[in-house]
Amino acid sequence: MSAKGYGISDTKNWTDFKIHEYELKTAQDDDVDIAITHCGVCGSDVHTISGGWGPLNVKTVVPGHEIVGHVTKVGKNVKDIKVGDRVGVGAQVGSCMSCWPCKNDNENYCTGDGKGGVVDTYNATYPDGSIAQGGYSTAIRAHQQFVFPIPEGIKSEHAAPMLCGGLTVYSPLVRNGAGPGKKVGIVGIGGLGHFGVLFAKALGADVVAISHSPKKREDALKMGASQFISTAEEPDWTTKFKDDPFDLIVNTASSNAIDLPAILSTLKTQGKLIAVGMPEDVFKIRIQNLAGNGCLLGSSHIGSKTEALAMLKLAAEKNVEPWIELIPMKDCAKAVQRVEDNDIRYRFVLEQDIEKN
Amino acid sequence: MSAKGYGISDTKNWTDFKIHEYELKTAQDDDVDIAITHCGVCGSDVHTISGGWGPLNVKTVVPGHEIVGHVTKVGKNVKDIKVGDRVGVGAQVGSCMSCWPCKNDNENYCTGDGKGGVVDTYNATYPDGSIAQGGYSTAIRAHQQFVFPIPEGIKSEHAAPMLCGGLTVYSPLVRNGAGPGKKVGIVGIGGLGHFGVLFAKALGADVVAISHSPKKREDALKMGASQFISTAEEPDWTTKFKDDPFDLIVNTASSNAIDLPAILSTLKTQGKLIAVGMPEDVFKIRIQNLAGNGCLLGSSHIGSKTEALAMLKLAAEKNVEPWIELIPMKDCAKAVQRVEDNDIRYRFVLEQDIEKN
Repeated sequence: MSAKGYGISDTKNWTDFKIHEYELKTAQDDDVDIAITHCGVCGSDVHTISGGWGPLNVKTVVPGHEIVGHVTKVGKNVKDIKVGDRVGVGAQVGSCMSCWPCKNDNENYCTGDGKGGVVDTYNATYPDGSIAQGGYSTAIRAHQQFVFPIPEGIKSEHAAPMLCGGLTVYSPLVRNGAGPGKKVGIVGIGGLGHFGVLFAKALGADVVAISHSPKKREDALKMGASQFISTAEEPDWTTKFKDDPFDLIVNTASSNAIDLPAILSTLKTQGKLIAVGMPEDVFKIRIQNLAGNGCLLGSSHIGSKTEALAMLKLAAEKNVEPWIELIPMKDCAKAVQRVEDNDIRYRFVLEQDIEKN
Repeated sequence: MSAKGYGISDTKNWTDFKIHEYELKTAQDDDVDIAITHCGVCGSDVHTISGGWGPLNVKTVVPGHEIVGHVTKVGKNVKDIKVGDRVGVGAQVGSCMSCWPCKNDNENYCTGDGKGGVVDTYNATYPDGSIAQGGYSTAIRAHQQFVFPIPEGIKSEHAAPMLCGGLTVYSPLVRNGAGPGKKVGIVGIGGLGHFGVLFAKALGADVVAISHSPKKREDALKMGASQFISTAEEPDWTTKFKDDPFDLIVNTASSNAIDLPAILSTLKTQGKLIAVGMPEDVFKIRIQNLAGNGCLLGSSHIGSKTEALAMLKLAAEKNVEPWIELIPMKDCAKAVQRVEDNDIRYRFVLEQDIEKN
């Protein structure tokens, strides 16, 4: 079966999207075919198509890994998803299913090198040579493990950006105990950070938004933060938390320019800082910066299916609504340019229009 | 009251110990006076007297913070310790008692800057100007919070090195869940690392000793390790743990020469590496090295009184015996030189002899 999508073939001309027609992966008994209605625009899309993370892995990339649509066909092994269901796909479409993490509900940390391993949703190749293309397109076919039913209460344009952006912060929040009685800091109030505030609040934690500039103060407070810190305006901000330190901080900034030792110093004893932004360069740290309060520095990679389903359930129950700008899919070039320019509050969602154009 | 100890006044002549006579801290109602019988020799002693951690903070330093002795006097607020008791003192003799960590059973992470804060056992000054001197000496006076009764079943020469070396690894082991069903790696089999193997085993974990050279294989297996890895002899050692990864690794090496990304890759999803060695230089890491398995990198600073007492109880119950070389206190120069030369398996303990010489 073929699909059409907005593709990029040259990282130097990374806004020059052209309609690309391609074959979906070879159909298998566990696969679900989805007619795409919506796709979020993730910072990863820009890193990939502009070559920031290296050359393209395939000749033409159709980006997009925050996908929502309707099921058009299911393989014979698919039990819990049926034709017509509204479902989503996030940033992963394959794993080996046999390594230690896969067998322990952590397929997002699959280590099955050489036996399949992680297949990213786009800019990737399946073990059989099929090319994985993303959601700026009419359709996707994916293994049922990576297809998530969307609860009724969530609009498709709200569900889409949760499937990478939302899950990327939801997973470290729940794995590190964010909940009632816990104080959680979210560093960086962009696409990921805004989800950090929304989900930490929905989980019942007391949330502090920490941003360089004061520009997003009002937004962050509306999202549910109890306090907003502008590190530029309050250089001594860490002293505020000396007697009321953080249990957990999720750092969504993808730059090494942040003052990591200062942020670490605001954690409780054995508190955790989880970095979900992926700076391109190394950072330098002294073990001594971690010894003062016995804190831990970690990272995280999207989330598991179990977590995706729990996140969607929470979002439906607590009415979590991401702040989005909904635009036609044909405007994907403008969207990626504005993401690059940091000119979006807080996530673009593309609406299907390919067969109409 | 005065005491006599083996002191160093010049970091360039850091084995030139001379008997130094000095006043103990100003007596207060919470203080306990101890006639010292034994003192362990810690790597910190060498770092301090040789200037590796900077110039001396006091004119003459009497090192030693693994102290055991008998109580000779108690202040009127001291309830649980009486004259004649056998007690110990570790690497800390003061904290502010009012900051968040102090109020939460984490006085070893006291943040009370300017209000007292942490007072190290030696090379330090109390808020009132009294100088804190260590255990290569006849006596010490310390606040009851930092004085630990020694259970009957433990010999004094075995208890002494537990009070810094033992506690430094015991605390991160228990705080990070080492116990039955958990797989724990100990990197570096020196003074700290040998305690790591002993205590992880005593806590019921499956322990793997990881060392550069193969020299300590037999020792580590005798201490209770189920496996010994020589990273020099087995460059591909990490693949051994792919299907059976570590819950926790305690890194006791105080050098940045170890291959941190390789070690991190052997952790389970959300597994933890706790570094208790304190390299003098910064290390470089990519957040991506933590994202592959969502692992965490942390550090730790000695342990709390609660943990010290639990450690001593465990040691008495499980008959944990450190591997030591017991020598007269007058041989402290030889001891620090051999610690510097990495020529000790695995801890020196000095036996009191000052009044005899």
